[in-house]
Amino acid sequence: MLKLYGFSVSNYYNMVKLALLEKGVPFEEVQFFGNQTPEALAISPRGKVPVLKTEQGFINETSVILEYIEQTQPGKALLPADPFERAQVLALCREIELYIELPGRACYGEAFFGMSVADAIKEKSKAELLLGFASLGRHGKFSPYVAGDSLSLADLYFYYSLSLALQVGRKVFDIDLLADMPAAKALMERLEQNPNVQRIAADREAEMPAFLAMIAAKK
Amino acid sequence: MLKLYGFSVSNYYNMVKLALLEKGVPFEEVQFFGNQTPEALAISPRGKVPVLKTEQGFINETSVILEYIEQTQPGKALLPADPFERAQVLALCREIELYIELPGRACYGEAFFGMSVADAIKEKSKAELLLGFASLGRHGKFSPYVAGDSLSLADLYFYYSLSLALQVGRKVFDIDLLADMPAAKALMERLEQNPNVQRIAADREAEMPAFLAMIAAKK
Repeated sequence: MLKLYGFSVSNYYNMVKLALLEKGVPFEEVQFFGNQTPEALAISPRGKVPVLKTEQGFINETSVILEYIEQTQPGKALLPADPFERAQVLALCREIELYIELPGRACYGEAFFGMSVADAIKEKSKAELLLGFASLGRHGKFSPYVAGDSLSLADLYFYYSLSLALQVGRKVFDIDLLADMPAAKALMERLEQNPNVQRIAADREAEMPAFLAMIAAKK
Repeated sequence: MLKLYGFSVSNYYNMVKLALLEKGVPFEEVQFFGNQTPEALAISPRGKVPVLKTEQGFINETSVILEYIEQTQPGKALLPADPFERAQVLALCREIELYIELPGRACYGEAFFGMSVADAIKEKSKAELLLGFASLGRHGKFSPYVAGDSLSLADLYFYYSLSLALQVGRKVFDIDLLADMPAAKALMERLEQNPNVQRIAADREAEMPAFLAMIAAKK
């Protein structure tokens, strides 16, 4: 059986977990915190989560795991069969990761963990987030899903990256990054009603106190 | 015929160009500079290069373009057929992009264009580059290619991202990021001898003076 390594507070972990749940693929969860110990680096070359353990070995990087699952597992398709349409979905995934998740992530310390982030980094993050959301508004269809009329990998990135990036916007920059995108706001609300999303949120909430205690102990 | 939009100084553009040349796929080059004008944003949602024009429309994001070409075009395979081996190559591509290209890119202004980058950004960039190169040393095979015995998409990322990241290391941090990786150094030299790499380098050199003049005019 596939084993998903990671932890329930990680939004990247939860993207893969949602893909497996939506497709109805059986899997086992293995709690694993990314770090730079030799043990962790033997599983994940950069010490990050999630990692998927298959019969052939470990696969790292969320985008790669998601495509691997899509290619090898049965269940509901989360990528279109047509190569051009498939490319549009994957491009939306990359845009959300590179232009929303990553600049938002640069400010997680300040938004979520009581740390301070340097002004130069915050300024860069804010400028990139504004461009990233504008890009999503241009390329996303929101009809009602990000890439069209059915749930795709782009919705997984959308839901789990934007949940945190929107909080960064509010907490660090005092802006609503979806102010001009009502269809995207409606999609966030629609996805929150998904039973698998709700199950993942419950797992996340259950793990949160221990996770915050672990972060506080490291400070 | 496929049309590749971008410019010859862009390392991402050159990854796609090398894939097309190595596969022997005919294509036309269209000079296009990424920016935030409405005309550019109609072609590329985030105003970036490269973009591939197909009969069905535009595809953006280098990683997505490379997979699309692999999926739809004839010629030498740059990804393994086995899903697990394919995932290893794609993970190496992602690791190079996320953990080497992007932190290196944060310092391009200082390394190449006479600009000054804030210390907080440089410190973050240096720490991430060191971890990124260590990760590549763990996951890369260099036997002699990044992912094994044949050229793959990972070599395209390797060559074109590292060329610039190594210069950032030398010029901004005064370090040789490949000091402990002789097999990776040997691969850089091997790839430099590839005739298609040399053709792309010649195109790059030819365009460089006009590109630097354009950057200088914007400062």
